[in-house]
Amino acid sequence: MVSLSHPQPLPERVVLLAGGVGGARLGHGLQAILGRGLTIVVNTGDDLERHGLLVSPDHDTVMYTLAGLDNREWGWGLAGETFANAEMLERYGEETWFRLGDRDLATHVVRTRRLRAGDRPTEVALDLQRALGVRAAILPMADTPVRTQVLTDDGWLEFQDYFVRRHQAPDVLDLRFEGIEEATATPEVLAAFEAAEAIVIGPSNPFVSVRPILAVAGIEAALQTARTRGVPVVAVSGIVGGKAIKGPADRMLRSLGHEATALGVARQYTGIADVFVLDQVDEALAPEVEALGLNPVVADTLMTDDPARERAARVVLEAAAEARHVGRPGERT
Amino acid sequence: MVSLSHPQPLPERVVLLAGGVGGARLGHGLQAILGRGLTIVVNTGDDLERHGLLVSPDHDTVMYTLAGLDNREWGWGLAGETFANAEMLERYGEETWFRLGDRDLATHVVRTRRLRAGDRPTEVALDLQRALGVRAAILPMADTPVRTQVLTDDGWLEFQDYFVRRHQAPDVLDLRFEGIEEATATPEVLAAFEAAEAIVIGPSNPFVSVRPILAVAGIEAALQTARTRGVPVVAVSGIVGGKAIKGPADRMLRSLGHEATALGVARQYTGIADVFVLDQVDEALAPEVEALGLNPVVADTLMTDDPARERAARVVLEAAAEARHVGRPGERT
Repeated sequence: MVSLSHPQPLPERVVLLAGGVGGARLGHGLQAILGRGLTIVVNTGDDLERHGLLVSPDHDTVMYTLAGLDNREWGWGLAGETFANAEMLERYGEETWFRLGDRDLATHVVRTRRLRAGDRPTEVALDLQRALGVRAAILPMADTPVRTQVLTDDGWLEFQDYFVRRHQAPDVLDLRFEGIEEATATPEVLAAFEAAEAIVIGPSNPFVSVRPILAVAGIEAALQTARTRGVPVVAVSGIVGGKAIKGPADRMLRSLGHEATALGVARQYTGIADVFVLDQVDEALAPEVEALGLNPVVADTLMTDDPARERAARVVLEAAAEARHVGRPGERT
Repeated sequence: MVSLSHPQPLPERVVLLAGGVGGARLGHGLQAILGRGLTIVVNTGDDLERHGLLVSPDHDTVMYTLAGLDNREWGWGLAGETFANAEMLERYGEETWFRLGDRDLATHVVRTRRLRAGDRPTEVALDLQRALGVRAAILPMADTPVRTQVLTDDGWLEFQDYFVRRHQAPDVLDLRFEGIEEATATPEVLAAFEAAEAIVIGPSNPFVSVRPILAVAGIEAALQTARTRGVPVVAVSGIVGGKAIKGPADRMLRSLGHEATALGVARQYTGIADVFVLDQVDEALAPEVEALGLNPVVADTLMTDDPARERAARVVLEAAAEARHVGRPGERT
């Protein structure tokens, strides 16, 4: 287990791989410490088209959270959000199982206009973020569309059909990422990995948030290249006490044949991560995590408010600093 | 002057040519009497694209008014409208001189999605209307885009640039309708004229609301064909006491070299209309209207509330009934 007793200088340039809420909260904490030194590579496999508008839920959750606009009461969406537009869309007979708030809709309207005008998703995303005062850079994992689909007893479903419309009720038996063959790491993503002093895998769903990011051609290679340079990769468990903080990761672990624990998550990151942060309630799993070749770090990982977000972020950065100092497990003598 | 003392049966199938607010209010009154017997042919020269969405202000004003959703307090837009979306668009740096309400935006989102999918504007409009419970049919004057432009000291301006952004401040020196050469009357518009027992020209701006409609290939011909069948055309003055009830018609009459009175409006409709309805405050102008070859009908034309809208509509229908009975001026012996 890495000792945190002799503090090392924290990494200043960090790449975070993130899905929605969990990654957004850790990202918010990291931004508080790192400011512009933080780059978040965000999953776009959850993207969808609604009412002719292009919606990018993970990007927008991260963007709103880092802009301080996240709705703390609901745990999703924008603070003060209203749904006058959605009610009117309903009157017009539009399907509204994926309800878009009045404020949120503006994001999709601007994004759609610009993408139709031929701008790159990455450029559009960065402009949206700047307009909201986000200091970190949130990069779509790719500029070409990738669409996650899940296999259930009802056959292959679009991700949001499973996630929102069916409330994650069906068991997920398999996954695929439509368009992943055409997706390649953007120059912005590659530059961020090249500059990174630490790489963090957020407490996001390993299957539908992290895996699509790593499946984009060039991204896992960039991560591994960074590791060979001694850049540590710190993964954070989104499973605490056998339950997902948010979303269906626990049920998905089980239905895909894994253990629905932090250890089950850690197993997804062998060969990818160097350090694994698990919550204090899961301390007993630390030796098994270490046996996988990951340095376990036990900490309070719940990010219930701003100080907790920053505290979790600091744990992650200190773990990275320590890992850089001591080297990877295989390098220790 | 047509006598209204011996009531004739009212026409049951009526075509109304309309721009925005004034035409919408008369249309609302006519719908109360005629229900599905009313077809409104609406100006689309004011249409524009905002934030990548297709906006059709005159159609939507008429639709909301006939659906009973018009904002009586403001005199435009939807009742209970909010602007959360527009505030967010502003944060994104979008131009918001043409602000779209949260509810209103739904109309443009659905319209844009369907037009991009290849549906005809007329079909889309009728579906939107049905969803809101409108009984009359509101037909776009054409299915191809027409864009009104006005010549000012600043050169040619898009209509909404002049109307909304510059608050109708510049003098209008000339007009043109981009795309009018390609615009032709739709089957729905032609069928409505063929079935019409009366044609009404609403109290709309003669230059930027009525003229573009009549300039669409086939529409004025359909109107004249109906007249030869004895179908009366009743025009209503939108100028009362030398002022436009709504909009810049009075200033436009002047800057285009006409008299800013009901008589100035009547002169725009010689050879097109048979009856001209002017407000009671303008009674003194009736003989001059008659001298133009139009039968003047003097009435209270202000449509301040629902009963006033229906009262004005009844005046128009009674005038049409009477004109059918007595024939056109030239036919009287």
